[in-house]
Amino acid sequence: MNRFETNLRIPGPTSLPSAVREAGSRQMINHRGPEFAGMLERVISGLQGFYGTTNDIVLLTCAGSGGLEAAIVNTLSPGDRVLGVSIGAFGDRFAKIARVYGADVSKIDIEWGRAAEPDDLRRALEADNGYKAILLTLNETSTGVMNPIRELAEVARELAPDALILMDGVSALGAIPFEQDAWGIDIAVSGSQKSWMAAPGMAFLGVSERAWAAGTTARMPRFYLDIAEHRTAATTGQTPFTPALTVLFQLDVAMGLMLAEGADAIYARHAACAAATRAGLAALGFSLFADPARASGTVTCAWLPEDLDWKAFNTEMKRRKLVVAGGQGKLTGKVFRIGHLGTVTLDEIVACIGVIEESLLALGREITPGAGVAAAQRAGLEAIGAAPRVGAGA
Amino acid sequence: MNRFETNLRIPGPTSLPSAVREAGSRQMINHRGPEFAGMLERVISGLQGFYGTTNDIVLLTCAGSGGLEAAIVNTLSPGDRVLGVSIGAFGDRFAKIARVYGADVSKIDIEWGRAAEPDDLRRALEADNGYKAILLTLNETSTGVMNPIRELAEVARELAPDALILMDGVSALGAIPFEQDAWGIDIAVSGSQKSWMAAPGMAFLGVSERAWAAGTTARMPRFYLDIAEHRTAATTGQTPFTPALTVLFQLDVAMGLMLAEGADAIYARHAACAAATRAGLAALGFSLFADPARASGTVTCAWLPEDLDWKAFNTEMKRRKLVVAGGQGKLTGKVFRIGHLGTVTLDEIVACIGVIEESLLALGREITPGAGVAAAQRAGLEAIGAAPRVGAGA
Repeated sequence: MNRFETNLRIPGPTSLPSAVREAGSRQMINHRGPEFAGMLERVISGLQGFYGTTNDIVLLTCAGSGGLEAAIVNTLSPGDRVLGVSIGAFGDRFAKIARVYGADVSKIDIEWGRAAEPDDLRRALEADNGYKAILLTLNETSTGVMNPIRELAEVARELAPDALILMDGVSALGAIPFEQDAWGIDIAVSGSQKSWMAAPGMAFLGVSERAWAAGTTARMPRFYLDIAEHRTAATTGQTPFTPALTVLFQLDVAMGLMLAEGADAIYARHAACAAATRAGLAALGFSLFADPARASGTVTCAWLPEDLDWKAFNTEMKRRKLVVAGGQGKLTGKVFRIGHLGTVTLDEIVACIGVIEESLLALGREITPGAGVAAAQRAGLEAIGAAPRVGAGA
Repeated sequence: MNRFETNLRIPGPTSLPSAVREAGSRQMINHRGPEFAGMLERVISGLQGFYGTTNDIVLLTCAGSGGLEAAIVNTLSPGDRVLGVSIGAFGDRFAKIARVYGADVSKIDIEWGRAAEPDDLRRALEADNGYKAILLTLNETSTGVMNPIRELAEVARELAPDALILMDGVSALGAIPFEQDAWGIDIAVSGSQKSWMAAPGMAFLGVSERAWAAGTTARMPRFYLDIAEHRTAATTGQTPFTPALTVLFQLDVAMGLMLAEGADAIYARHAACAAATRAGLAALGFSLFADPARASGTVTCAWLPEDLDWKAFNTEMKRRKLVVAGGQGKLTGKVFRIGHLGTVTLDEIVACIGVIEESLLALGREITPGAGVAAAQRAGLEAIGAAPRVGAGA
């Protein structure tokens, strides 16, 4: 049965709440005036809460990858030794950016599907801790794996106390508990189109005092992504270059919704949707790609069975207005991914699993109708502590 | 008398037509799907017409200044000799970016308020034509001066045929006749929030085959702003990184409006509004900053009389919901600027001049009520060839 509205279940951009959408239609304003300054201040203040930081947060008009580049070029110099800890395509990208700008990059390449465990990092740093920076990924969008970032940061601080910790948090910050200051993350990057329920176009960098200090001697060239210019402009409520105003209008409204819902409720909602997605897919016979102990709270990656053609499967889903993501890089055609971040609610995940059921049935696959949605619903309710006690089955 | 809606007369962002505004409230879509691909193709095809080019046009998610940086880092290597022809703050910025990335930059610094005349460039290139690139500004937003870009490009092609011509066209492309291919401009940069009637967040680069070829050996580091990645992604209707979707939604609608209006009508409208602005301000006693022969078609800069306090004047205008721009850099507090690009129409300029009249009267200045608006109206109508023939006065 075809939906009227698309169920957009890619790992960003994510569907926007109506109030946020509508903010995108506001008329332009002077980006050098007091209305803009107030909006910028509110958004940054809200972000600080979810980042767990009292540091400055810089808003750049660019994609998340531009934010990753900013983290590197604002803190490092050509020739600096950098340890890239990669668990997938975005970890590879982060390391690549450092190489492009002349860093001397060593890499830990964790098998895709696994997280970087604290012992992985410990071994590497015990062998060699002479790094200026360590690149970590909070949530690997390509594999649906979430790193134990707090523990990784602890190991880094213990064994390489002078190394900056630069973190790609693009696809998870705002959806899970996070404490930048307490955990000692020097730069944490996120993007407007992920958990923050706004359109793409802005990247955020939470920047520690250590990172600001590193910036004063960092010699990688930078102009548009120079965050020091943003820090200066922010003192007068401005940005150095014309910002993506519609995105900021939306972020302002979205942040209001997030603060009204409350961080704990947001995190519980995301955890429930993640659990529901995994349970639903598993009940339909899909093998999940990620190490179960490190499965992501914002995106789930599942193997495509060898006898299930991705194109045919995706066509059936798209006919029913369910849009999921395919595999990236070497996983193209081998996996598919479901995003569950931002505005996601349990009923939308149940709906998504329902359409996957229908699609599989349309392709003549033998599944038990209702098995997926029931499992998803059960797991979701259990995760939020509201599992039905009576007649709930096994 | 206070307006209900702001008359936003800064040189970008510009007010959006309702249909464009509303496109900013569209729900997110998959940026890797066919709907996105169609939209990207339509926008690029429309831009090609206004650029006068059959070359690829790259859309980057960033401010115009990011586009300037992209023009440099995608074509040049550290140590390359570059001639920066600056007529104001943005020309200075363009040269600064080249310096930041290690180019060996020579500069022609034209007195602010004047254009770079072909003879200025001729003299410089006759003395030394060993440049890899020449940086030109189509329209200097800080001074309201428009360069004779066709003639400058001719001189450059004649005397330094191997030099790339990189052009900041941010605040004028789309508002005036322009022929990138015929005039031999290698990279022409613009931005969504200027003449294109959309929100800020995207920069456009029209790129010649010569510039693409230069990119294959250019060694300035680049990742997020690497246009070759965009060219590759465009072959499948995508962008390498998540683009500012709301801006693209708006550009798609705005381009439809521009094509419906037609290039000639758009250019005539801008010329009329520019003439009206200049005449209105002059009639109120303001001295215009720009050389009259080179006055910009999109932004007018006027001296503040010494006995007119900028803050008090601006407060009166803002009370009446007229938002103009102050001076930039060394002109802060000495000039003010009125943007007339994008959605601007003659009646809005007349309204703007009317509010300036009111503001001056409120400050007790001796002006003749109606003098400004009458002059603006007359000049505007004359410019579009519709001047009233009877009783039109002097």
